Amino acid sequence: MIVPRLIERKRNGGALSKDELRELILAYARGEVPDYQMAAFLMAVYFRGLDRAEMTTLMEAMLDSGSQLDLSHLEMARIDKHSMGGVGDKTSLVLAPLISSLGIAVPMISGRGLGHTGGTLDKLESIPGFRTQLTLAETRRQVADIGCALVGQTAELVPADKKMYALRDSTATVEVIPLIAASIMSKKLAESLTGLVLDIKCGSGSFLPELDKGLELAKAMVELGDSHGCPVVALVTAMDRPLGFACGNALEMKEAIEMLHGDGPSDFAEVTFALGAEMLLLSGICRTNDEAHAEMRRAISSGQAAEKLEEIIAAQGGDSGVVSDTSRLPQAACEAVYESPSDGVVARVEPRAIGHGIIALGGGRRNMEDTVDPSVGFVITAKPGDRVAKGQPLATIYARRKSALEIGRRTLQEAISIGDAAVESCPLISHRVTMSGVEHLRA
Amino acid sequence: MIVPRLIERKRNGGALSKDELRELILAYARGEVPDYQMAAFLMAVYFRGLDRAEMTTLMEAMLDSGSQLDLSHLEMARIDKHSMGGVGDKTSLVLAPLISSLGIAVPMISGRGLGHTGGTLDKLESIPGFRTQLTLAETRRQVADIGCALVGQTAELVPADKKMYALRDSTATVEVIPLIAASIMSKKLAESLTGLVLDIKCGSGSFLPELDKGLELAKAMVELGDSHGCPVVALVTAMDRPLGFACGNALEMKEAIEMLHGDGPSDFAEVTFALGAEMLLLSGICRTNDEAHAEMRRAISSGQAAEKLEEIIAAQGGDSGVVSDTSRLPQAACEAVYESPSDGVVARVEPRAIGHGIIALGGGRRNMEDTVDPSVGFVITAKPGDRVAKGQPLATIYARRKSALEIGRRTLQEAISIGDAAVESCPLISHRVTMSGVEHLRA
Repeated sequence: MIVPRLIERKRNGGALSKDELRELILAYARGEVPDYQMAAFLMAVYFRGLDRAEMTTLMEAMLDSGSQLDLSHLEMARIDKHSMGGVGDKTSLVLAPLISSLGIAVPMISGRGLGHTGGTLDKLESIPGFRTQLTLAETRRQVADIGCALVGQTAELVPADKKMYALRDSTATVEVIPLIAASIMSKKLAESLTGLVLDIKCGSGSFLPELDKGLELAKAMVELGDSHGCPVVALVTAMDRPLGFACGNALEMKEAIEMLHGDGPSDFAEVTFALGAEMLLLSGICRTNDEAHAEMRRAISSGQAAEKLEEIIAAQGGDSGVVSDTSRLPQAACEAVYESPSDGVVARVEPRAIGHGIIALGGGRRNMEDTVDPSVGFVITAKPGDRVAKGQPLATIYARRKSALEIGRRTLQEAISIGDAAVESCPLISHRVTMSGVEHLRA
Repeated sequence: MIVPRLIERKRNGGALSKDELRELILAYARGEVPDYQMAAFLMAVYFRGLDRAEMTTLMEAMLDSGSQLDLSHLEMARIDKHSMGGVGDKTSLVLAPLISSLGIAVPMISGRGLGHTGGTLDKLESIPGFRTQLTLAETRRQVADIGCALVGQTAELVPADKKMYALRDSTATVEVIPLIAASIMSKKLAESLTGLVLDIKCGSGSFLPELDKGLELAKAMVELGDSHGCPVVALVTAMDRPLGFACGNALEMKEAIEMLHGDGPSDFAEVTFALGAEMLLLSGICRTNDEAHAEMRRAISSGQAAEKLEEIIAAQGGDSGVVSDTSRLPQAACEAVYESPSDGVVARVEPRAIGHGIIALGGGRRNMEDTVDPSVGFVITAKPGDRVAKGQPLATIYARRKSALEIGRRTLQEAISIGDAAVESCPLISHRVTMSGVEHLRA
């Protein structure tokens, strides 16, 4: 393998053979191909792309670069859900216990907040004592025992992706659809799933705001899953406003727990149950969407979904008392209501501004070393299209110190615009992507 | 400076400010920007290019990354010639002594063979004892003393270019015109020249075979020189066949010495004197082309050009006796005449095949660590368009061992094609490029 010739071929618009690309990736993972050659290759891929065969080879090589979470000994369906990330996006916190309470294994390996978006691990760690860093063996055991584990990535799993992601981040080669697709899918397929549901975020708060890019990514990931024998369903959902009301780690955990008790914002419920229904359909447990929704309602009203969350929290060393008493979650020292500055209609609630506001309040990271204050954030009850009067409460700010409330106020002033009429926004759930193609869903 | 943002801007087709690009290059030279970020940047430049201002900034930053050969204390004109490299291209070996014998300083920093092309340093080192690795201080002193030094690059000179060139070589980012232009010009302008003549090779044996690319490169380099206050003239010359007859280090040294005695192949003479005339015009010593040619003829017939070569060789520790007795150059152990396999017309003499054949004979490098046998190579008297009879000698092969003669034979079989008629070839000297524009020269 002469690496500069491989880079050159990609640079000139050619394709690498399966053996060539596989060896390039595995040699890179072993440290035998230096970062600078991979950086040049990735930038060439930015301009020239990867064809389907190359994308599959890349993913399989990354998958084979390390250990996997082998759950093939389990007889039950193994279904996960992955979101492209957003603000207020807490569906995983509901779906993991809810779906696993229905007899499906949910081996969920999640990430931390990235840029303006929140991370499932950070939200879970708002539960006192909750441990997200399990070994692969511990995770495997826990999934076998109670059907679910909510954990972070380990160094053993897909090391090529970990190494390549860090490189992409420092060389402006992150926004490359086949690389994103292979990166996500290698991590998800390392969970030995029998099905995967993707939540592709669309709109200003998404990493890929344009719908066409989101659909392209969805199609790529659906095909990657299919090539690996794992059926994948992707839903395109709105991220031009936060999902639900709560934005901030403990606040979101609380809203998720309330949802497991049957309570909560309707947009959050709608997206969660739509994703959950796809998980149930993929598992084979339910045959229709209606049946799936009925099953989920039953699991919530019977309390089994909430109990499953208690079980998971206890298994991972956390205070499971938070499920029946959310006041045991970290509470912010100060809070203040934010009122509408004028009469009118809520035109926009900008998720990026909210996400950056949470970081400014101390609830997110600027650097990977930063510690996160789980208690801070926003509960924003105003939604685009709402008619509001001057002085009407739109949101509550949660901060560590009185002086920080002003940061929250400025964030909301920037994020929430009041106008004469509603601005057109993304449909809450707009498309469904499977191997059969892209289905446009009616709003 | 946030490097990924700079890479991203270039990747998206934007330009870097002077301060940004300068700091990027200098920080890279200091080891503060890692190779992988520079590799991604260079690949983005491959696709997006550099504008004139960026190219100038890049060159000036590389120039300022190290020491320079300061000759500004000399009152005489300081003129160098640089060739893009080729096979049988030995004009420097004639021009350096010839032009410096006319009272012009020629501080010539040259390179080694690269790919299929030969290198001036390797040819010089065929002279027993000749030392090409002088320090900058030694070079400076020698140019002041005898008007000329023929040396290799030192680590002190343009270190950013050295580092970046090695990176480009291993990341498939060599063939990028603004990078080539800035790389060459930074090294040449570090010689504190008052004028520079470029020999832009065109045709199949050139690194940039297409005429339009060659002209683009020539224009870029002429503009870079101008921006630095150094007038540059570029001639576009043919490299779709070897220049002159001799190809191989000692063989070329011999042919160059013969040229200094007034003897040699007409194509070699024509290109050499055309380049030399431009050097004399740039120096201000001559005002017309005719005058320049007369001066050069005089310097040769008087013997002063050959004496200058003796002086240079002696100053650099070599056996200056080779100038009057070329049999003191290394002689190959074996030689064999190569005859025309058929009646016809010489259609092509392919320089790349010849260059690779010299390497196969041991006269060039596959890796930088290889040692070179200076004695081996070819003397090819057949030129495209020559009518030849079957059995007529076309070339002589010079090899280390009898067994290696076969390598030479196969090389010549591949390189020299005999057909029914001459194939159209590049004009020997086709264009002249200056700040006034591109002048098409009549054949």
